[in-house]
Amino acid sequence: MSQQNPVFIPGPTNVPDRLRRVMDMQTLDHRAPDFADTFQPVLAGVKRVLKADSAEVMLFPASGTGGWEAAISNTLSPGDKVLVARYGMFSHRWIDLCQRHGLDVQVIDVEWGDGAPIEQYAEALKADTRHEIKAVLICHNETATGVVSDIAGLRKALDDAGHPALLFVDGVSSIASMDFRFDEWGVDVAIAGSQKGFMLYTGMAILAVSQKALKAAETARLPRTFLDFGDMLTANAKGSFPYTPPQQLIFGLGESIKMLEEEGLDNVFARHHRIAEGVRRAVKAWGLQICAKRPELYSDSVTAIHVPEGFDATALINHAYGAYGVSYGVGLGEVAGKVFRIGHLGSMTDVMALTGISTIEMAMHELGYPIQLGAGTAAAQAYYSETRGDVRAMAA
Amino acid sequence: MSQQNPVFIPGPTNVPDRLRRVMDMQTLDHRAPDFADTFQPVLAGVKRVLKADSAEVMLFPASGTGGWEAAISNTLSPGDKVLVARYGMFSHRWIDLCQRHGLDVQVIDVEWGDGAPIEQYAEALKADTRHEIKAVLICHNETATGVVSDIAGLRKALDDAGHPALLFVDGVSSIASMDFRFDEWGVDVAIAGSQKGFMLYTGMAILAVSQKALKAAETARLPRTFLDFGDMLTANAKGSFPYTPPQQLIFGLGESIKMLEEEGLDNVFARHHRIAEGVRRAVKAWGLQICAKRPELYSDSVTAIHVPEGFDATALINHAYGAYGVSYGVGLGEVAGKVFRIGHLGSMTDVMALTGISTIEMAMHELGYPIQLGAGTAAAQAYYSETRGDVRAMAA
Amino acid sequence: MSQQNPVFIPGPTNVPDRLRRVMDMQTLDHRAPDFADTFQPVLAGVKRVLKADSAEVMLFPASGTGGWEAAISNTLSPGDKVLVARYGMFSHRWIDLCQRHGLDVQVIDVEWGDGAPIEQYAEALKADTRHEIKAVLICHNETATGVVSDIAGLRKALDDAGHPALLFVDGVSSIASMDFRFDEWGVDVAIAGSQKGFMLYTGMAILAVSQKALKAAETARLPRTFLDFGDMLTANAKGSFPYTPPQQLIFGLGESIKMLEEEGLDNVFARHHRIAEGVRRAVKAWGLQICAKRPELYSDSVTAIHVPEGFDATALINHAYGAYGVSYGVGLGEVAGKVFRIGHLGSMTDVMALTGISTIEMAMHELGYPIQLGAGTAAAQAYYSETRGDVRAMAA
Amino acid sequence: MSQQNPVFIPGPTNVPDRLRRVMDMQTLDHRAPDFADTFQPVLAGVKRVLKADSAEVMLFPASGTGGWEAAISNTLSPGDKVLVARYGMFSHRWIDLCQRHGLDVQVIDVEWGDGAPIEQYAEALKADTRHEIKAVLICHNETATGVVSDIAGLRKALDDAGHPALLFVDGVSSIASMDFRFDEWGVDVAIAGSQKGFMLYTGMAILAVSQKALKAAETARLPRTFLDFGDMLTANAKGSFPYTPPQQLIFGLGESIKMLEEEGLDNVFARHHRIAEGVRRAVKAWGLQICAKRPELYSDSVTAIHVPEGFDATALINHAYGAYGVSYGVGLGEVAGKVFRIGHLGSMTDVMALTGISTIEMAMHELGYPIQLGAGTAAAQAYYSETRGDVRAMAA
Repeated sequence: MSQQNPVFIPGPTNVPDRLRRVMDMQTLDHRAPDFADTFQPVLAGVKRVLKADSAEVMLFPASGTGGWEAAISNTLSPGDKVLVARYGMFSHRWIDLCQRHGLDVQVIDVEWGDGAPIEQYAEALKADTRHEIKAVLICHNETATGVVSDIAGLRKALDDAGHPALLFVDGVSSIASMDFRFDEWGVDVAIAGSQKGFMLYTGMAILAVSQKALKAAETARLPRTFLDFGDMLTANAKGSFPYTPPQQLIFGLGESIKMLEEEGLDNVFARHHRIAEGVRRAVKAWGLQICAKRPELYSDSVTAIHVPEGFDATALINHAYGAYGVSYGVGLGEVAGKVFRIGHLGSMTDVMALTGISTIEMAMHELGYPIQLGAGTAAAQAYYSETRGDVRAMAA
Repeated sequence: MSQQNPVFIPGPTNVPDRLRRVMDMQTLDHRAPDFADTFQPVLAGVKRVLKADSAEVMLFPASGTGGWEAAISNTLSPGDKVLVARYGMFSHRWIDLCQRHGLDVQVIDVEWGDGAPIEQYAEALKADTRHEIKAVLICHNETATGVVSDIAGLRKALDDAGHPALLFVDGVSSIASMDFRFDEWGVDVAIAGSQKGFMLYTGMAILAVSQKALKAAETARLPRTFLDFGDMLTANAKGSFPYTPPQQLIFGLGESIKMLEEEGLDNVFARHHRIAEGVRRAVKAWGLQICAKRPELYSDSVTAIHVPEGFDATALINHAYGAYGVSYGVGLGEVAGKVFRIGHLGSMTDVMALTGISTIEMAMHELGYPIQLGAGTAAAQAYYSETRGDVRAMAA
Repeated sequence: MSQQNPVFIPGPTNVPDRLRRVMDMQTLDHRAPDFADTFQPVLAGVKRVLKADSAEVMLFPASGTGGWEAAISNTLSPGDKVLVARYGMFSHRWIDLCQRHGLDVQVIDVEWGDGAPIEQYAEALKADTRHEIKAVLICHNETATGVVSDIAGLRKALDDAGHPALLFVDGVSSIASMDFRFDEWGVDVAIAGSQKGFMLYTGMAILAVSQKALKAAETARLPRTFLDFGDMLTANAKGSFPYTPPQQLIFGLGESIKMLEEEGLDNVFARHHRIAEGVRRAVKAWGLQICAKRPELYSDSVTAIHVPEGFDATALINHAYGAYGVSYGVGLGEVAGKVFRIGHLGSMTDVMALTGISTIEMAMHELGYPIQLGAGTAAAQAYYSETRGDVRAMAA
Repeated sequence: MSQQNPVFIPGPTNVPDRLRRVMDMQTLDHRAPDFADTFQPVLAGVKRVLKADSAEVMLFPASGTGGWEAAISNTLSPGDKVLVARYGMFSHRWIDLCQRHGLDVQVIDVEWGDGAPIEQYAEALKADTRHEIKAVLICHNETATGVVSDIAGLRKALDDAGHPALLFVDGVSSIASMDFRFDEWGVDVAIAGSQKGFMLYTGMAILAVSQKALKAAETARLPRTFLDFGDMLTANAKGSFPYTPPQQLIFGLGESIKMLEEEGLDNVFARHHRIAEGVRRAVKAWGLQICAKRPELYSDSVTAIHVPEGFDATALINHAYGAYGVSYGVGLGEVAGKVFRIGHLGSMTDVMALTGISTIEMAMHELGYPIQLGAGTAAAQAYYSETRGDVRAMAA
């Protein structure tokens, strides 16, 4: 395994040197009187990134899956009904988690590559006049298919139906690379991960939780201790943690937020959009199809690409890895073997994206794909060239 | 917060440079074909350290509390009875976790500073002729009081009673600094943490699980997904993870095991015993009392020390931190304010221990403790001097 | 200044993580009995890389310029005659150094872009029947023009003339990326730098010195102490240094040699040749001229490229830096403004080279260069694709 | 070789994490337009630390010996007379360097352990009515004996004699740990090293040079190129270097100055004085003699200590290293075997000093030294305890 070339997996992302340096720290005393001086501004920073002024932010030493579980187990009771659409591997897994926690899961299945079906959500909510649905779940960015969904639209559907259900949003692969508006969208629990837009190592689930969700936590009967909201908030209020905190990642998160804000959140999102659009130009030049069905579904953090009939996307990825030491995302679940993914979230530049485009292009060429070698790269170059500005590079 | 002086908290421990270097890594593709080449030998290494040939080892991106929860939620069902003694803050918290998960917890309360009451466990097990007790829980090393307990004795109690209950052992603050014999002691779930004897950053719960516990998992009805044994084993068997693995800590764990084995596990344990004994000589020279009631209870990874009547242990710790930038463990729960703790687990040398001893000695002197300045340090020096060998220093 | 994108300057090169980790070390005692255990194998390793079994290797805490000065000042006396060709900025600077040290410098000027004129050297040597020329100087790889010269040819010229002059070779930008044969070529002093093929930080001049040169040092009267061969060898023989050694770079050099030998020196050289040839294919596709006049002069560590009439190479480099955060080498001296350079020595992959090619291509396009956007990249991709093998990637 | 315990050699010093992080950097383009933005403020910072507003500061990729050579070779011509006292290994070596560069060296020999004999300097200067002495040399802090000398006194001697000689001061082991006043003392060249008070890796000689010395450089005829003041100043003025700069150390120096100024220079000097005084109290309690003959000669950066008759100081040091993995300075030259040295410069706390004191105390005890185990440590503890303030710890 080489560490010379960047990775193009949809997380964990390349880690900038600036964050590696901060995370390469000697142990500090997390019970020392001044630990809170570091820790509490980090919580405030997360609120700014998620536009979640009204929320409580919590940092659990867990993966995104732990974040999903925390959302459910803190707010719901066995047998509670939840409404959720399945349109990719990550929405599928969250559904599975709900089922295994004894929830009554009302699933809306749509084709993978499509986005969350806001109208179907709306219908189901309207139909639920007795308000049996306690929570509505949605993946902001389905990482498996590179599809972004309309959270504001779902909020509107809830409001239009006058439905009091909680709104849980998986923002793991969108937050900090794409715009996220916790307050404006009326989100109740948002889940992010350290290893995606925040560009850190894997190991911390970052949650923003509304006052309404905290209220629900008071009566929720699903068991939880490790991921308990109450324990966390009580400890945090005293500047401490209910157990040993992941201090390395907390310090890293503080620096990550500093980097994001030095660049400017809008610039960060614009950068990811521009990089993603270059990737999409390359896909078009190859004559291939993007998995996301319509432009408004295109994700700016990951692009899933259909390989032509008769080709195996997993073999392509393995070839690129073996021949060039460059990693891309495999297809998962229903689209396994049918799509490969170029991750372009987190720490990414236009120049790095060209590396990813030109390398997979060589790999496709070598495996006999009906593409013209160089065509995709040139299309991306042309787009980046047209849209370049002065580099507002993240500080080293 | 300074990082010049070592910490003497009972975890997270000082992180050796050698491990910091390995953990300061650029992102690798955890789905790449060769990731398993790194990952699977690490599992094998953990088995060697825990003497757990028969076990399955699992690495969860979680703290030790997550490890406790995984042990319970994978093997038990709501209402199941468990037997557990409370003799410190960490056994207390594990009990709390069980209660919050709806278990029927039979608690044996003993004075803090005492060890797990093997005879009382034995009586309770014998009395349970209908085998309602599904699991017996015990902290190998109660971190709050610096007390080690007799796991082999508890095994014998189970065997003598012919009781089929599972045996769960919290080895978070003992494993890799003190001897642990999973197979010999017939342990069913052992829980360790990355940030203690393994000398890594916080963020990974390391579990060894017996075949018997895995069998129990098949019918256990407490909900779990993030910490599910089955998902983890299924994925691990394919060289992968059910979600993004904490790759930094996995690589670190591989190097940690290499360090431990280069030094030799018996040498590691002997080193910690010698360091701990020096600390105890210092305590004696100060005329203070060790929290652990009897020598056979003395922990080799942390020493809790009673302050004299009329003194506040928390104020002492804060003074040492403020005046010298050196951290020690506070007293927790019932012994809050009454004891302070010197952590000497993980990455520790005799020389570092002298630093910890001489500094707290100054702090006590300055706060008017009835001790002779220098006496404790000299006692430790004398012991270290008598028992020195050639340094079998951990490699840099 | 961003550190996300690789640099394409002809040194210092990108530093692999593996070497950064080793160099990120805490201070060790360089007078400790075991320091020599680290240090002396490093000297032996340098001999293997330079194929210099017969030489003494010395490591000075200095830049390559210090290495040049050491070669001269240890072996020559004021007024001594040296023979040297000027065909680029670095040969020019070495000449300047000789002149400022009071040597009688016989300069053969050739056009920049040409290589060392072996025939003219041969003539001068033959003409020097009284053997007034004490040393012959040559740059193996003229970094300013990307020209490699024929050291074996110069050796032959010396032998054919039966001339006893010493042979000093600047291998700063070739050694460890291109083949170098100290013994076979009869070199007397070879100079390398830590920051080029060895992929380390700047700060160590690495010299191999023949027994003949050491003999000359006994009577040489140019003053030197800091860079004195005798002091260094005397101290090294005892496992020590005449002053504080650059221990970080010495440890790094040991690891660098390990990396080079794990890949295999021949594979390293083949890798650089393949990468360089891809760059040259791109230049051809752009319709531009390589500064090196003939294929046999092409350097595998740096390519200097003429910009078309009417364009300013320095403006191009600045534009690429400003717009994309990617660095290339400027033209120096006679070719300032006329050429830019793509450095591809040290830690470099084919994939990284594509990054460099595609980025400068965009920059040229944006400044109105008469090139076709994508053409150079596609030519390099085609070459890399044809010649790919399994990646024999340097270990992370 | 362990890196767990601090070193107590008089340089290189322990490197703080904060500086290690900055120096663990990926390569940047030193010819990029913004490199000067980093580099020039560093030069300004050095001026503040040395109180050298009037000077030019230069950073050479070299050791302190290179700095000595630069001072001489840039300002003097063969045969020039210099006046210098020898009172330790480092003054001895500088004298040797002068002699090997063909200078006419007038040596004042005094006993090792004594300081620079200001009166004898004064006499020699007064006697030199023809002003044949071109430069006067002095070590501010003789590292071999732990003796500080009176630079202001030497300035006064020059002024009283109305003597125009240049004043060169070796401040390698004093600067940034002890007060240094370039302008006030009328110094012409001061030499510091990266690896001492600046707490960085070895590899950079830091020079401050007066306008008078620069004037002398115009006519000085000793040869130099690598260490040439003129080349350096000309390049620096354009924000560049005459060759590849040691960028890692330049960035590190910038951060080092930030650390020193955050603590406050006066606080830094007071910290070193307090630490050193604790060491001296320990020596007194052991009944041993400090090498420096009088209190006003005591160095605050290193303490050399005489071992009793019949003991071998080198054996002591080796024993401490072998038994405890802790390094101290050996005796050098005339005091080899007779003294050992405790280095307490650079990154050092009172707590770290106790580590050094208590460890060497054990080593002496084990070798049968007539000392009371613990006595020295207790004396230092008492002193540190009396003089403690709130820790004004250097930031992590």
